[in-house]
Amino acid sequence: MPNIGIIGATAYTSLELIKILLRHPEVKISYLGVRRTDRPKISEIFPSLQGQIDLECDIIRENEVPANIDVAFITLPPTVSMKYVPQFILKGIKVIDFSADYRFQDRALYEKWYKTPHTDSAGITKAIYGLPELFRDQIKKTRLTANPGCYTTATILALAPLLMKGIIDPLDIIVDAKSGVSGKGREAREDTHYCECNENIEAYGVGGHRHCPEIEHVLSIKTNQTVSLQFVPHLIPMNRGILCTIYCKPKNKGTASALNDEAALNIYKEFYQKEPFIRLREITSPPKTKDISHTNFCDIAVKVTEKRIIILSAIDNLIKGAAGQAVQNMNVMCGFIEEMGLK
Amino acid sequence: MPNIGIIGATAYTSLELIKILLRHPEVKISYLGVRRTDRPKISEIFPSLQGQIDLECDIIRENEVPANIDVAFITLPPTVSMKYVPQFILKGIKVIDFSADYRFQDRALYEKWYKTPHTDSAGITKAIYGLPELFRDQIKKTRLTANPGCYTTATILALAPLLMKGIIDPLDIIVDAKSGVSGKGREAREDTHYCECNENIEAYGVGGHRHCPEIEHVLSIKTNQTVSLQFVPHLIPMNRGILCTIYCKPKNKGTASALNDEAALNIYKEFYQKEPFIRLREITSPPKTKDISHTNFCDIAVKVTEKRIIILSAIDNLIKGAAGQAVQNMNVMCGFIEEMGLK
Amino acid sequence: MPNIGIIGATAYTSLELIKILLRHPEVKISYLGVRRTDRPKISEIFPSLQGQIDLECDIIRENEVPANIDVAFITLPPTVSMKYVPQFILKGIKVIDFSADYRFQDRALYEKWYKTPHTDSAGITKAIYGLPELFRDQIKKTRLTANPGCYTTATILALAPLLMKGIIDPLDIIVDAKSGVSGKGREAREDTHYCECNENIEAYGVGGHRHCPEIEHVLSIKTNQTVSLQFVPHLIPMNRGILCTIYCKPKNKGTASALNDEAALNIYKEFYQKEPFIRLREITSPPKTKDISHTNFCDIAVKVTEKRIIILSAIDNLIKGAAGQAVQNMNVMCGFIEEMGLK
Amino acid sequence: MPNIGIIGATAYTSLELIKILLRHPEVKISYLGVRRTDRPKISEIFPSLQGQIDLECDIIRENEVPANIDVAFITLPPTVSMKYVPQFILKGIKVIDFSADYRFQDRALYEKWYKTPHTDSAGITKAIYGLPELFRDQIKKTRLTANPGCYTTATILALAPLLMKGIIDPLDIIVDAKSGVSGKGREAREDTHYCECNENIEAYGVGGHRHCPEIEHVLSIKTNQTVSLQFVPHLIPMNRGILCTIYCKPKNKGTASALNDEAALNIYKEFYQKEPFIRLREITSPPKTKDISHTNFCDIAVKVTEKRIIILSAIDNLIKGAAGQAVQNMNVMCGFIEEMGLK
Repeated sequence: MPNIGIIGATAYTSLELIKILLRHPEVKISYLGVRRTDRPKISEIFPSLQGQIDLECDIIRENEVPANIDVAFITLPPTVSMKYVPQFILKGIKVIDFSADYRFQDRALYEKWYKTPHTDSAGITKAIYGLPELFRDQIKKTRLTANPGCYTTATILALAPLLMKGIIDPLDIIVDAKSGVSGKGREAREDTHYCECNENIEAYGVGGHRHCPEIEHVLSIKTNQTVSLQFVPHLIPMNRGILCTIYCKPKNKGTASALNDEAALNIYKEFYQKEPFIRLREITSPPKTKDISHTNFCDIAVKVTEKRIIILSAIDNLIKGAAGQAVQNMNVMCGFIEEMGLK
Repeated sequence: MPNIGIIGATAYTSLELIKILLRHPEVKISYLGVRRTDRPKISEIFPSLQGQIDLECDIIRENEVPANIDVAFITLPPTVSMKYVPQFILKGIKVIDFSADYRFQDRALYEKWYKTPHTDSAGITKAIYGLPELFRDQIKKTRLTANPGCYTTATILALAPLLMKGIIDPLDIIVDAKSGVSGKGREAREDTHYCECNENIEAYGVGGHRHCPEIEHVLSIKTNQTVSLQFVPHLIPMNRGILCTIYCKPKNKGTASALNDEAALNIYKEFYQKEPFIRLREITSPPKTKDISHTNFCDIAVKVTEKRIIILSAIDNLIKGAAGQAVQNMNVMCGFIEEMGLK
Repeated sequence: MPNIGIIGATAYTSLELIKILLRHPEVKISYLGVRRTDRPKISEIFPSLQGQIDLECDIIRENEVPANIDVAFITLPPTVSMKYVPQFILKGIKVIDFSADYRFQDRALYEKWYKTPHTDSAGITKAIYGLPELFRDQIKKTRLTANPGCYTTATILALAPLLMKGIIDPLDIIVDAKSGVSGKGREAREDTHYCECNENIEAYGVGGHRHCPEIEHVLSIKTNQTVSLQFVPHLIPMNRGILCTIYCKPKNKGTASALNDEAALNIYKEFYQKEPFIRLREITSPPKTKDISHTNFCDIAVKVTEKRIIILSAIDNLIKGAAGQAVQNMNVMCGFIEEMGLK
Repeated sequence: MPNIGIIGATAYTSLELIKILLRHPEVKISYLGVRRTDRPKISEIFPSLQGQIDLECDIIRENEVPANIDVAFITLPPTVSMKYVPQFILKGIKVIDFSADYRFQDRALYEKWYKTPHTDSAGITKAIYGLPELFRDQIKKTRLTANPGCYTTATILALAPLLMKGIIDPLDIIVDAKSGVSGKGREAREDTHYCECNENIEAYGVGGHRHCPEIEHVLSIKTNQTVSLQFVPHLIPMNRGILCTIYCKPKNKGTASALNDEAALNIYKEFYQKEPFIRLREITSPPKTKDISHTNFCDIAVKVTEKRIIILSAIDNLIKGAAGQAVQNMNVMCGFIEEMGLK
């Protein structure tokens, strides 16, 4: 039974990760690392874990690697993560990294958006993008998986079928994304204060969110064409959940007039027919975030109008958008049944 | 001092209307009509009104007109309202109607969307669309104002300046709209149950919301061109507030490359320079619904990207999207200062 | 592997029950019964179940019993449930009933509070109150378990140790209880409308909630003394969770002055030392409903002041207060490990 | 027209204060002071004020007094406020202080709870407790009003009538208080993070909240007896509003059995008959925080049971619990109509 280490154990995503791994029959959490803490016991940091796990968090420094770990989940922030990852790989540990540090094959693109030189050239080249629905075969063989961002997961899964079939114009895509507040992380800031978020909706990072180049990069590689989109994220007064409303243009008028709601949905049904975590919904009963809350599902529906194809996709940003997908990746990397611990 | 009647007093919008009118120094609420109720006292229907107004609601039937009313706010549902309005007009009463019944100059369009023959031809022809920022001069002279819908107010105010200046393509507009639950009305239904709305976001009426033709109709008339848009509304777990995120395309490439955020905002500043209820915001601190909550303001910001012009607009659906705008219309119709009771 | 039937499948508690049972390795859901529905597929009633369970709901009438069921969870309302239960018992099916119909050994007390003659004398006499922490041995042997109410579970678990040790006055107890909205059920009513609940807190049923006599009844029987309490429930703007703040008086001054926070907590630690679902917390980090949300835990803390002993207890009303406890009861009744499916 | 200064302009209570004063016809906001800020314009700190007030905040140091101020609202934290207040008083400025620094006539009691020597002996002796319903005549004549805390306002208004009539035991009172998150202030901390508050309820400061001695102190002085109570505050997932559920014991059995709900309510009706901001409610339709939200009302209901008298009181913590009450005090101090700006 593989021993699991989590590096960055105080994040919201780590709490979800721990809960999932505690239910996973084939692994054992044996190490929790943090960069700093004043409450070493994980059940003091997260009282919901009381009675379920009794580990103390260890202070772990750059370049340190804990002993006896087979799989490491790194939930550190971008630009920090790459200081830790290489040593884990060197020791033969399988790594699933939650940051953006290994999501770009194009180092210059990473450096442009994260404004820091990338210090692990070997890693960024070899890492596989951890979206099993699109990269399962490569994930099976890798030791370093870059777990995707939450917005990116919801968007890529929604767009991939129509882009790969050549149905929509890859240069005319609008993604209007809505996320619960946990997507902002656990740090106490003005914009995560209850009274600032509750009874409020706002857009943020209009025209410059880091998930946009990540989506474009992955979809461009995967579909062999330049994909370019307009992405606007919004903050919603709820703890968890992401809904993306995506507006696409049919590539040519002929395709468009031939397509209706049912035909469009069938493309998705075929594309995702064997996927355990994709659920397709009729547009008359479209995805709701409450239906995927606390699950690893991505719910998708599609609507064809005279002018546009509208895609709706919903995930739990902490599960399919982070911890659940990470475990799904671990399952693929370790040869476990992919749903293990996740249903 | 004009006597005010409210017909349909049990709606959420009526509660807000009463609160505003109680603070208005130049009018007096003297009649409250309802189609049915088991609690006649308005302060029993809305306990928040206790100690502020002591009227009992009167049961009012179609074709009835209460005595001694100078101005009537009709807050009945669409298709019901037009049964009441004509008699008020005949008696010389000024009417501000909250329903959709008088918002379309084109009767066929109304009948297509509301699936009912329109029974007041005279009214639908003469009524003025009650958006003072665009139709102030006509509102001044009319006796029948059609108070706009909430989504429509936020969208039209956001789009009018760029459409009237000919900067954006009127046929390639996407409106992604988000509304609090009070926009669904006060009726208890599955989709307004707390546990269905809380911790949830969902799109609804994808591809077929009635506010879309209303927006297109009004903007087409006002800007003398065919305006056509894609409109998707979403339900947000909050009581009140609407945020519209609007994606437009520059009409020609030259215009677009010449435009930047500041220049775009200046178009709005000029267009709305004398408007008391329009506030323009920098895109770096964009509109939040909490900032316009309980006010008659519409906050707008604009962002120019390589591909699109993105407009954000926020209103309180119950105030600028309903009761506040209605009082603003009354002020215009009665010759009061336009901000009276509203600041 | 026992076949499970759920009668009353459209309740919120049934949704949670289904989710738990789907993860339970030793049972199989084979029947879903409802009194009426317009959407037979359970995954259409609860879209969150799509891809997880494919059963259709069967319309079941009073006196009917589905074939091939070994264990039945009856989630019907009080006064309805007792029309269904007897036939299940007659056929040798193990029953866990969620209503109040079998919670009172005293038939007159039931009839006083539920204002209906009880029609199953045999059942009400034999049924065991399904709180495993207090009645485990009897639950092991019964075929009919009365699953406790949500408020009652939180209150009884908080009070039992101090009452059984004779430390507090059984006649001077105040329970100030706070519940999320799912405690009101799934029916759309004015008091469950989002805009009525959100940004609001209110007391309800002041001086007359049905859970009060249930608590008094069970505690009086269990502790062999008359227990009488003042109980006031409140509605909190959240989906799920109950927090009870309980104010007790030490029975005699001597006891009180000898007791401090630590000693009081130790009484609980001893009383609940083998309980898998009771977690004791220091008063400096008291129970929060978010820590027990989606779990079967009951978190308890205790504070001794000069005048009172204050107990705080938190449960998820849908899990430990309903579906989770029901599965815990099933595990006890069927001889499974008690935590099975619940951790 | 008096010129108003607000010292501590960045607090949530200051935002509400500014909004109220902007509607007040007899005063003018002419100075905003802060201890530090990186955004001097008040409409940048609070975008909701854009278009309504154009002042810049001035950095003000201890012992400084701005020129040309007639009335000062000091919204600084306890222990800071008393560094500022004396100079204002010396210059003849009327002061309404929001902190606890002038709420205790008993300096030792203040120093016990606020763990700091009090540096303004003259002030603490002369200051009047700013609850107009109980101390109106003294407020009329003072230059220094100590604006009460939010919990204390709701509790004292609920208890005063029964305590002054000698109906309840002053030593056996339990106050179970529930507050929205704005009561915690505007600082970003772990316990005000959206995801920590939302879908959660918790007690805090169990057995040691500073508002408890304040309530006991004021009620003891006002009712000429030792009043002692058990006070437990709770944090509720909403922006604003306080509900207190108060459990009292009748002083003697005779009184109790003579009292019913109606008689009890009549005591309140008589006691508060001329009060513009007290509303009494039947227990069948008890106070809800949403009904007093954004108002200066305190809604109260009372229930007599066999064992207890239960009082419910609700206020908006930011209005009647802070800014509204401060303006009410100003109106009394300046001889304005007491409701001015508040209805």
